[in-house]
Amino acid sequence: MTKRYLEDFAVGQVFKTGRKRVEKEEIFAFAREFDPQPYHLDEKAAQQSVFGGLAASGWHTAAMTMRLMVDGEFKPAAGILGVGFDELSWPRAVRPGDELHARSEVLEVRPSKSRPDRGMIRVRNTTLNQDDEVVQVFIANLLVPRRPSEAAGK
Amino acid sequence: MTKRYLEDFAVGQVFKTGRKRVEKEEIFAFAREFDPQPYHLDEKAAQQSVFGGLAASGWHTAAMTMRLMVDGEFKPAAGILGVGFDELSWPRAVRPGDELHARSEVLEVRPSKSRPDRGMIRVRNTTLNQDDEVVQVFIANLLVPRRPSEAAGK
Repeated sequence: MTKRYLEDFAVGQVFKTGRKRVEKEEIFAFAREFDPQPYHLDEKAAQQSVFGGLAASGWHTAAMTMRLMVDGEFKPAAGILGVGFDELSWPRAVRPGDELHARSEVLEVRPSKSRPDRGMIRVRNTTLNQDDEVVQVFIANLLVPRRPSEAAGK
Repeated sequence: MTKRYLEDFAVGQVFKTGRKRVEKEEIFAFAREFDPQPYHLDEKAAQQSVFGGLAASGWHTAAMTMRLMVDGEFKPAAGILGVGFDELSWPRAVRPGDELHARSEVLEVRPSKSRPDRGMIRVRNTTLNQDDEVVQVFIANLLVPRRPSEAAGK
């Protein structure tokens, strides 16, 4: 997959990822280390909770999405460098056995005014399960380098 | 630490966490699983990158912050249930050997209009390093149950 500079991005482009099956043991392992709350660790407690059953930590969903993106079609030249997010939400729980995939849509491409070697792109990233239900959405501002020759010519 | 219902939260309250030292091996382990990009995995490549040295994945910082929060003073009665985030940013890299802590400030407390048993609180969460430099900020909307007796009385 070709690495893309700022000049290679355009509003409306969509980049896809492969798929990742979420195993129950992975949900437990992430929760034990980073988010040890009952609804991510204990199936009985999870049934009594607002989730109505075992659910992955939202941060686990975010981390798995990042991995899908790194392995997917979206290849900014300097890597996926998130500077900030305007929103992030988890509209639906991720369950054991779910199979996730993600897509990234370019919303805006903006050269930097102060730094001729770079710019920002604004991307809506949507993570879906096997039924194409949305489990996570975020809008990210990513740092992307300009193609060296063009930057040098300005 | 007492669990708090919606009625126990008020604008301006600040909740603190303990501290977490970030080991280089943890940065590598998280990156190998979730964010395998050179500046999180390889010290030489990281020096050439925009980070100027090895840096933790932003999602790793988010996950470590979650663990600090779960173990900290902030104890909503049904757990820390993030429904959505209005912003999330990583203004400074997290380095091997950094020692992180976080604080959560209540910005807004809002009973649900449609569901008498719950409400939302809006919280600014700031993660800082050992020099009190901000490494992550987010503003989260969290679901919090109302105290059962008061909800029943409405």
